[in-house]
Amino acid sequence: MKIGIIGIGNVGLQVLKDIQLNEKINNFLSIEKILVRNKDKYFKILESEFGSKSLLLEKLTDNFNNFINSDIDTVIELIGGSDPAKDYVISALSSGKNVVTANKEIIASSIEELTSLAHSKKVKIRFEAAVGAGIPLLEVLIDMLKQNNISKITGIINGTSNYILSSMYYSNKSFDESLIEAQNLGFAESDPTNDIGGFDAMYKVCILGSIAFGAKVPIESVSVKGIENLSQKDIKYSRELGFVIKLLAVTENKSSKIYSNVAPYLVPENHPLAKVSDNYNAVEINGDLIGNLWLQGQGAGKLSTTSAVIGDLVGIEKNTSGNLMLDQKKLNFLSDDETIGKKYIRLNVEDKFGVLEKIAGIFSNNKVSIASVIQKEVDNKGLADLVIMTHESLGSNLNNALVEIGRLEFIQENPTTYEIYEL
Amino acid sequence: MKIGIIGIGNVGLQVLKDIQLNEKINNFLSIEKILVRNKDKYFKILESEFGSKSLLLEKLTDNFNNFINSDIDTVIELIGGSDPAKDYVISALSSGKNVVTANKEIIASSIEELTSLAHSKKVKIRFEAAVGAGIPLLEVLIDMLKQNNISKITGIINGTSNYILSSMYYSNKSFDESLIEAQNLGFAESDPTNDIGGFDAMYKVCILGSIAFGAKVPIESVSVKGIENLSQKDIKYSRELGFVIKLLAVTENKSSKIYSNVAPYLVPENHPLAKVSDNYNAVEINGDLIGNLWLQGQGAGKLSTTSAVIGDLVGIEKNTSGNLMLDQKKLNFLSDDETIGKKYIRLNVEDKFGVLEKIAGIFSNNKVSIASVIQKEVDNKGLADLVIMTHESLGSNLNNALVEIGRLEFIQENPTTYEIYEL
Repeated sequence: MKIGIIGIGNVGLQVLKDIQLNEKINNFLSIEKILVRNKDKYFKILESEFGSKSLLLEKLTDNFNNFINSDIDTVIELIGGSDPAKDYVISALSSGKNVVTANKEIIASSIEELTSLAHSKKVKIRFEAAVGAGIPLLEVLIDMLKQNNISKITGIINGTSNYILSSMYYSNKSFDESLIEAQNLGFAESDPTNDIGGFDAMYKVCILGSIAFGAKVPIESVSVKGIENLSQKDIKYSRELGFVIKLLAVTENKSSKIYSNVAPYLVPENHPLAKVSDNYNAVEINGDLIGNLWLQGQGAGKLSTTSAVIGDLVGIEKNTSGNLMLDQKKLNFLSDDETIGKKYIRLNVEDKFGVLEKIAGIFSNNKVSIASVIQKEVDNKGLADLVIMTHESLGSNLNNALVEIGRLEFIQENPTTYEIYEL
Repeated sequence: MKIGIIGIGNVGLQVLKDIQLNEKINNFLSIEKILVRNKDKYFKILESEFGSKSLLLEKLTDNFNNFINSDIDTVIELIGGSDPAKDYVISALSSGKNVVTANKEIIASSIEELTSLAHSKKVKIRFEAAVGAGIPLLEVLIDMLKQNNISKITGIINGTSNYILSSMYYSNKSFDESLIEAQNLGFAESDPTNDIGGFDAMYKVCILGSIAFGAKVPIESVSVKGIENLSQKDIKYSRELGFVIKLLAVTENKSSKIYSNVAPYLVPENHPLAKVSDNYNAVEINGDLIGNLWLQGQGAGKLSTTSAVIGDLVGIEKNTSGNLMLDQKKLNFLSDDETIGKKYIRLNVEDKFGVLEKIAGIFSNNKVSIASVIQKEVDNKGLADLVIMTHESLGSNLNNALVEIGRLEFIQENPTTYEIYEL
């Protein structure tokens, strides 16, 4: 198998090392070409990693045409982001080369186009590393589909957010402190928007949903709410109620409509999802025959990602399972407004008579039934937090109620609201 | 794919139903022959399940020669036990038919022979259902081996024992009460020896070890200790020390020697294995690239087992991963005596001066270092329980110490000893 590799950052270098040194694979995988933006820089890096006599040094190019027209049959794309990665992948498939990629962004946005293109060109595209790194989520999911219908996938699939939430929960740190800690440990990037804003999990849940439900789950169909506004108050109040806050990604078939959501959820403290700490990923898949299947492991990191990339290469070579072909059918989707769920709501109110009555009335008028209300201590400005847990209610009703409540003069800040996870 | 099925108990009937009704598979799988011991009995069962006009009624036979010489290309063996299942499987492979089986006993004892026979006959044998039912343990393990070296597998792989232990832990019931409860719920058989004695887990760990380490891990190389003598006392004392007792199955590569053990372990209460309750199965696999991978799900039950059987059939049909070929190399094994570990020891002693000194001296002379000793309340016969936790010590040293201690006149019953799980 003659491999061309695009991008040799952390993971790319590890893949190169593994292909050179791992005796399980180096007898049938060989690196023929390496595309980088800055040839001089990567010449030095390769030289220091593999020595000045390494044949790899001669494989470097900074020219895509030169790269794609060389004698390679499989392209590993590891630069990430949409541009120019998507063009490179399309060009590789179009010229009859297999593609292995870890790029969740282009797979999420173009899974249908890319898998059909591969199919029409009789080549393969695999992307196990795009979701959960080395955890064989996609392979297991594709395999389960042979005989199971999937009803729901629920996961913690962003290690950065989970690290921050664990730090906030276990060390009582603020969001900002926890983010800095995660950055210092290399678990968060200097611009963390993709992770803490829920976008990384959104891409991944689109991929999981598209595979599970056999047709594209587009980014636009996913509701996304990140953890960036989460306060230590909410961690504390939900802990007192027996919950741990986790950024969950959910994709679910509800009566033939797909609902996908990425948001902070209050998870009951005894539920296994509540125990998934630090930078671990965990995913629960519900199939009609298999029941609940749970996979957990290192969802990031260069070794784990390399395991997935190499696994995909060997899978292509040995033609094992993992080839995906989506239906052209269009799925139907549910929005938040159309979905029923329980919510945690925190309101900061002036502590005076009639406030609770007024709020309860608005919920009641909007058909939102309240399960519990707890008033927290009054601060020195005469303001108190009200923590409200709702029964199951329709998203649009709840949103209408919150808009009305937000307009009340004794409400000091916009209502804070999070999902409550239900078994 | 023309299928012959041997045995239609709970799982067999479910497989028949699924092949008839599941539109994902019934366009390429067809049942051609059904071998049963009692034709009249199963005629009635099939008639009541599928109606008197079902074509399945004509497929019944009680004659193996008739069965194996009919026009089938794949045999599903679901009778379990070693005799006559092993002969049937060997005969099927020898006549050039693929085999799918859920039979852990024959796979554990003959994995090398059966996989080589399949290989030489250019057919396939698959047995995903033999370990953890529908949890795709074997498939994931075989797939990981493409690029990972496996160092250790640790699992809760006997649902019956785990149900009983959960009941003892959470409901403070005795072993006997918990066993009867499990039997009433269908989680334990009327003769539970295989499950509570650790033999079911022993077969399964042999299969996992053989795949992970690429050559046969024979039954004789596994140390086995069941849960049948576990008392509520040990559950209580270990809980006070922060542990939950679980029947673990472990197979590990320790400096190129394989150590396999099935035994009750004290698991730290915050470890994920401690939280695996009721009849769930969970397995942790350690690979050098992938890190710790965790799979959990329904490790028994007719639906989950059917998922694995059908998955194997589709895997054979589509020639996806899962074909196994072991090396003929001989592995080296470690016994308990040669292994280092920490132990929990409970001694029932007369409460008098000098006892502890004497016991401590024997441990010390045998190079067993004690981490803690706790004396529990003295009963009305003047007897007390001593709970001793050791540091890491060599198995043979510990066993020598226990033999000496067992001979002391103030020791009232043989020492009770359990493993302590270490990360």
